[in-house]
Amino acid sequence: MKDTQLPEDSTSWSQDMVRSTLPERTQDGHKGTFGTALLVAGGPDMPGAALISGLGALTSGVGKLEIGTYRETIQSIAHAVPEATYVPDALVQIANGSHSLTSYKAIACGPGTAPDALTEAAIDKLLKAPHPLMLDAGALSARSYAKRSAPLILTPHAGEFSRISGYSIEQITESPGACASAFAEKHDLTIVLKGPRTTIAFPDGERFQNPTGNAALAKGGTGDMLTGMMLGMLCCHDNWRHAVLNAVHLHGACADEFIKTRSPHTMLAHDIAGLLPEVWKHYE
Amino acid sequence: MKDTQLPEDSTSWSQDMVRSTLPERTQDGHKGTFGTALLVAGGPDMPGAALISGLGALTSGVGKLEIGTYRETIQSIAHAVPEATYVPDALVQIANGSHSLTSYKAIACGPGTAPDALTEAAIDKLLKAPHPLMLDAGALSARSYAKRSAPLILTPHAGEFSRISGYSIEQITESPGACASAFAEKHDLTIVLKGPRTTIAFPDGERFQNPTGNAALAKGGTGDMLTGMMLGMLCCHDNWRHAVLNAVHLHGACADEFIKTRSPHTMLAHDIAGLLPEVWKHYE
Amino acid sequence: MKDTQLPEDSTSWSQDMVRSTLPERTQDGHKGTFGTALLVAGGPDMPGAALISGLGALTSGVGKLEIGTYRETIQSIAHAVPEATYVPDALVQIANGSHSLTSYKAIACGPGTAPDALTEAAIDKLLKAPHPLMLDAGALSARSYAKRSAPLILTPHAGEFSRISGYSIEQITESPGACASAFAEKHDLTIVLKGPRTTIAFPDGERFQNPTGNAALAKGGTGDMLTGMMLGMLCCHDNWRHAVLNAVHLHGACADEFIKTRSPHTMLAHDIAGLLPEVWKHYE
Amino acid sequence: MKDTQLPEDSTSWSQDMVRSTLPERTQDGHKGTFGTALLVAGGPDMPGAALISGLGALTSGVGKLEIGTYRETIQSIAHAVPEATYVPDALVQIANGSHSLTSYKAIACGPGTAPDALTEAAIDKLLKAPHPLMLDAGALSARSYAKRSAPLILTPHAGEFSRISGYSIEQITESPGACASAFAEKHDLTIVLKGPRTTIAFPDGERFQNPTGNAALAKGGTGDMLTGMMLGMLCCHDNWRHAVLNAVHLHGACADEFIKTRSPHTMLAHDIAGLLPEVWKHYE
Ligand SMILES: Nc1ncnc2c1ncn2[C@@H]1O[C@H](COP(=O)(O)O)[C@@H](O)[C@H]1O
Ligand SMILES: Nc1ncnc2c1ncn2[C@@H]1O[C@H](COP(=O)(O)O)[C@@H](O)[C@H]1O
Ligand SMILES: Nc1ncnc2c1ncn2[C@@H]1O[C@H](COP(=O)(O)O)[C@@H](O)[C@H]1O
Ligand SMILES: Nc1ncnc2c1ncn2[C@@H]1O[C@H](COP(=O)(O)O)[C@@H](O)[C@H]1O
Ligand SMILES: [Mg+2]
Ligand SMILES: [Mg+2]
Ligand SMILES: [Mg+2]
Ligand SMILES: [Mg+2]
Repeated sequence: MKDTQLPEDSTSWSQDMVRSTLPERTQDGHKGTFGTALLVAGGPDMPGAALISGLGALTSGVGKLEIGTYRETIQSIAHAVPEATYVPDALVQIANGSHSLTSYKAIACGPGTAPDALTEAAIDKLLKAPHPLMLDAGALSARSYAKRSAPLILTPHAGEFSRISGYSIEQITESPGACASAFAEKHDLTIVLKGPRTTIAFPDGERFQNPTGNAALAKGGTGDMLTGMMLGMLCCHDNWRHAVLNAVHLHGACADEFIKTRSPHTMLAHDIAGLLPEVWKHYE
Repeated sequence: MKDTQLPEDSTSWSQDMVRSTLPERTQDGHKGTFGTALLVAGGPDMPGAALISGLGALTSGVGKLEIGTYRETIQSIAHAVPEATYVPDALVQIANGSHSLTSYKAIACGPGTAPDALTEAAIDKLLKAPHPLMLDAGALSARSYAKRSAPLILTPHAGEFSRISGYSIEQITESPGACASAFAEKHDLTIVLKGPRTTIAFPDGERFQNPTGNAALAKGGTGDMLTGMMLGMLCCHDNWRHAVLNAVHLHGACADEFIKTRSPHTMLAHDIAGLLPEVWKHYE
Repeated sequence: MKDTQLPEDSTSWSQDMVRSTLPERTQDGHKGTFGTALLVAGGPDMPGAALISGLGALTSGVGKLEIGTYRETIQSIAHAVPEATYVPDALVQIANGSHSLTSYKAIACGPGTAPDALTEAAIDKLLKAPHPLMLDAGALSARSYAKRSAPLILTPHAGEFSRISGYSIEQITESPGACASAFAEKHDLTIVLKGPRTTIAFPDGERFQNPTGNAALAKGGTGDMLTGMMLGMLCCHDNWRHAVLNAVHLHGACADEFIKTRSPHTMLAHDIAGLLPEVWKHYE
Repeated sequence: MKDTQLPEDSTSWSQDMVRSTLPERTQDGHKGTFGTALLVAGGPDMPGAALISGLGALTSGVGKLEIGTYRETIQSIAHAVPEATYVPDALVQIANGSHSLTSYKAIACGPGTAPDALTEAAIDKLLKAPHPLMLDAGALSARSYAKRSAPLILTPHAGEFSRISGYSIEQITESPGACASAFAEKHDLTIVLKGPRTTIAFPDGERFQNPTGNAALAKGGTGDMLTGMMLGMLCCHDNWRHAVLNAVHLHGACADEFIKTRSPHTMLAHDIAGLLPEVWKHYE
């Protein structure tokens, strides 16, 4: 874990905090107890994003997972995420209201999806649903946010945050915490501003910084894994803030475990799913 | 293993009972000795169920495995279960009688199949076949059962059992053993009532409770794995009751092994197939 | 290794014989040094046979491997055997002479192919080619064999041997060595009569029995793996008889390694490819 | 490592040189810091080449990877290289200029691509782009090279080098270093002349020989892995010559690690990606 001075007075979401907030897996629970998550992800040229985020959700405590994606992506990835079931043409079905959202416990949208009108139309519907909602990657755009009853969590990296907030990359680099909190409070949502030291800014001004992670994560796909892990955590945590914080912390902790015996240049995003079971155990 | 008080006087199917009933793999046997199993599973939106249950059967002592599923599901999963061969459009072929069932030693139907008229029509044919038959998931519906010569085994969780029996979830939760035995005796079949403490009720009133397993199993796909394992066990056991009981026991024992070093939130159903070889060995 | 009395005076192809006949991998060799193998395998309902035998060849010393199979099988398995290249619609192309066979060092045909007229037509062409040729499974039929310049190796189990030889299963079970040698001498070819104790009968009357293997091998797919391994060994051995014998021996030795720590009911054919690297090393 | 006498006075690119030139993974870098690589690879009958080289790039320090290949190859391999994104019909799009090349840090072309007019047309465009460019396998042909601003690296084995240079195999075998350097200087490019002792000849006459590797590498696919690794290294190294040399060295070192406990006949090209993380670490 990094021991650098925290800028802008953010609190570090420490190992002890994780330890004391991780949920037990209720001994008598069944898959319904932990809930069904919907993951809208993947596209023709980015099928892997659905696979990686799907793996992330399934290894992070979800009860059941439905992956909404394109038919050809289902065909391509289903055997690699066999525990999931699939919603074909999900963006279209969600946008036109033909896919009911009532049964979900949490929803995430964005990894590998194109930032186009169809995605926007689907997000309009998702924003109106009464579930914790995460938007990432292709689902991050400059838009307005109506008041909603359940948590809304955006997970941009600096470039994406600049695009949706209007802050310049320079402003964000200089004062990540201040920018994230200002945006979070203004729009009444949570910003997970990803980077070497990820900042988590809640809508009421509470803010944390993540102490784990390293440059092994600086490679395509690691953000997709985080989205999936956070979606899974939202299903097994009672407290959604703990879910968000613990997902970011454990994601980085897996990368820290990786580089103990392996070069940081060589990690693949999906390696994280293989490391998570033992890393998580160390916190229990 | 859990050491809680057993409700309703069920006997625990203990580690020693497993030890004394597991079959040796006849030294001079060939794949024909252990028989060919038919697994009807999977569907367009649930291809993974065929993969997971197929893996379960293949790692549980089957001689040969045929997976009956949709053409697109074959295309999607075949490389992940390469030891199996495939029956394309199996539900249609079974329903219209064009696929002969004579060569099988045991049959299972249901994981990932839609609970629709086609499935029902296929099950009508399967019920008339003279083989041990397991019905799970999409193959569980409220129907009547004609007398048949070979064992019939249903593997519902509480929700599915409520649907097929008419008992309320409350009744089932309160008296799982009594409900399962009553239904089993009435319809002359075996009920594997799955849950945190799975109850196995045989048609003659004999009843056992499974002492293994934990909440790592509370996730999509674990039931599919059990169906496959039980199908495989039916092929390598002489005594079908032992096959049913040992499948449930070892399935849970794998999950118990998993959580010794890994968080229960992180297990995937197909991890069980990786754990089974060494876990089974410990009982031999 | 089994220590039972050998029937019919076959010599056991012992661990020491393997040790003294396994080839070194010429330090200055390149992939061309070890030659290109052609594997004709797989079919719409049996895609896995191509995958398993392909893995067997690639882990057994081949230089390059071409897998001839159906287009849809290529699509399904290519990523699982990425080191191979593919010949689409190989049976048709070979049968009509449009695929040149001159560049190969050894050829195998049969795992997962249908025993039909197309296969027969292709085999007619393969039999005329001047390469070591293995026929297995779907390529085994009752036919006559013209004199050929290179070794011809058939790998039937007892049922297949009965079909191609006219001996009854009883005769074969009673006197496997005598039956195999009689057929081998009569048709001037090599019979690998597979079973719990595989017999290898060469055309000149020389005969060996394999001392390795166990009932973990009594499951679909293990024969496909052996075909692949033998094809690979034909490429890296100078002496083709040693290739045949060592393939059978090491195939069984992998299964013997497996059951040291795992139940024999649980082995999958493709597990052998994972065990082979270290097992082979123990003989070097 | 081999300790044989170096022919023609090439310097060995030693373990110490690797150690002192491998880059640190900048602690504060993000995926953009390491750059996006374009890999043009794979074809209908050689889909695996795209998978293997893709794995090589992703495990070798790239920031983001785009794989340009055929639609059917994407469908076949995407789940096995989920961290990559895809450019469908890349050769066509590059040849006709409809796919912009401006965003890349390095480009490689050739593994599994057909050596035809389309490939040539695409290479014409790639040669004009201002990026480090690697050509391998199907992208190696006898052509002229206009002056370009960024490094051009060709990675032929002896047969391919003969084809593009006009030297006979005998000349190349006799004097690999002299031939490689003469060609490199004449055409102002870098030749990685692959073989049991790979020679790296830079355009200014500098020349090295690689001390690692063994005959486990003498099998289809290992060259594709090297291409991918070199592409990844070009992205994470500041000095492109070190990238080239270190890729060759570590590629061989993985094979040397493999044979410590496994037979050299059994290695698969994609095993290298599994060995690289710990092997690389030993040099850090
Ligand atoms: N240098 C780094 N140190 C720590 N974490 C990083 C670093 N680079 C990237 N990450 C993390 O990797 C993920 C990248 O997400 P994305 O940018 O969406 O691909 C985020 O969780 C980042 O916080
Ligand atoms: N909390 C739990 N403890 C033990 N076993 C469980 C638990 N939850 C689910 N299972 C088992 O996991 C499987 C779930 O099957 P299904 O409901 O069909 O997916 C059954 O074998 C259950 O007995
Ligand atoms: N009980 C057994 N003991 C040893 N080897 C066996 C046994 N059963 C099958 N095998 C081997 O497994 C393979 C089966 O091939 P096949 O019958 O074509 O699937 C052959 O190599 C057999 O020799
Ligand atoms: N006998 C050998 N010793 C060391 N390296 C080898 C040997 N044979 C092949 N290689 C390496 O394996 C790769 C083969 O590439 P290619 O010929 O394109 O498939 C190159 O990196 C060669 O240097
Ligand atoms: Mg991202
Ligand atoms: Mg179920
Ligand atoms: Mg066979
Ligand atoms: Mg090459």
